[in-house]
Amino acid sequence: MHLLKEKILKEGKRLEGNILKVDSFLNHQIDVALLNEIGKEFKRRFQDKNITKILTLEVSGIAIAVIAAQYFHVPVVFAKKTESKNLDKEVYEGSVYSFTKAQHYKIRVSKEYLHKGDNILVIDDFLANGQAILGLKEIVDAADANLVGVGIVIEKGFQKGGSLLRAAGINIESLAIIDSLEEDEIVFRSN
Amino acid sequence: MHLLKEKILKEGKRLEGNILKVDSFLNHQIDVALLNEIGKEFKRRFQDKNITKILTLEVSGIAIAVIAAQYFHVPVVFAKKTESKNLDKEVYEGSVYSFTKAQHYKIRVSKEYLHKGDNILVIDDFLANGQAILGLKEIVDAADANLVGVGIVIEKGFQKGGSLLRAAGINIESLAIIDSLEEDEIVFRSN
Repeated sequence: MHLLKEKILKEGKRLEGNILKVDSFLNHQIDVALLNEIGKEFKRRFQDKNITKILTLEVSGIAIAVIAAQYFHVPVVFAKKTESKNLDKEVYEGSVYSFTKAQHYKIRVSKEYLHKGDNILVIDDFLANGQAILGLKEIVDAADANLVGVGIVIEKGFQKGGSLLRAAGINIESLAIIDSLEEDEIVFRSN
Repeated sequence: MHLLKEKILKEGKRLEGNILKVDSFLNHQIDVALLNEIGKEFKRRFQDKNITKILTLEVSGIAIAVIAAQYFHVPVVFAKKTESKNLDKEVYEGSVYSFTKAQHYKIRVSKEYLHKGDNILVIDDFLANGQAILGLKEIVDAADANLVGVGIVIEKGFQKGGSLLRAAGINIESLAIIDSLEEDEIVFRSN
């Protein structure tokens, strides 16, 4: 997606440890007009999938998911990372391994909001190791729903998540795939 | 806002401790069509304020803020509750007192995304004790920006936040004000 890549080149900041910081338009300040274009692009790529619900993970997936949902005319559900006393007792759980923290954490969705036969589009901001997506897939599977696609804004193509998930047969569409953040340059895969 | 009140009456769940759970359309599953109407209503109420930026607080304000921002054509900034290694070192800080946890926590916005003279609309899902709004106001004041309005989806009118903030001269618009959650009934203030 050309507009997105331009924005990443213009405003993305490369930090140590292969981190790409996109705080000016995605993760702290949010460029809603850009999100509209991202939402339309997800719709274009998944239009024949009969999506019935969009699933994401708090925090940074929420803005993208709700804007995109406008083009699909479906509700959004976001998985919660923290155990809340107000969350339903009956939940689907997924387990996410965090490489930074070197430990697993649980993510949860109330059983009320995912149903058997739902066609789920998972949306997230970044794909790196793919662990968050695997945790969300666990939840979709537990609900006996169908994971019909995964829409990612920025994929770190030099990390293993993308190939891992594609090898598992998951239909992933990443709007920008970065093959390298090194040597003073952001290199996109031509896709 | 009639549509919102209807939705609260139909799907809101009253829990012990004066808690209103709106997980089916606002805090877990998100009804994006309803958020569109909420966004339009905020625009109607703040249309003459020359808003330049919408500020909210993670997590539950984000969805509402980005959908509303489409009608104002301005960016959203969300304050962060957790100290992230990727957040800029130069931040505006606010302090929020949590009655549930009986302690203060810090919220932060990078200095890059709020500027002197910005006309800020703060948006949040709930107003109860008003502490989150006070913390956000601290940040707006520190940036020398103008807090021109606060848009709240659901105000708990039986808690002190609303009167506290209005007494401080803050321009608050709440789309539904609940005066009582007791005795098996949700009672709205006629506004």
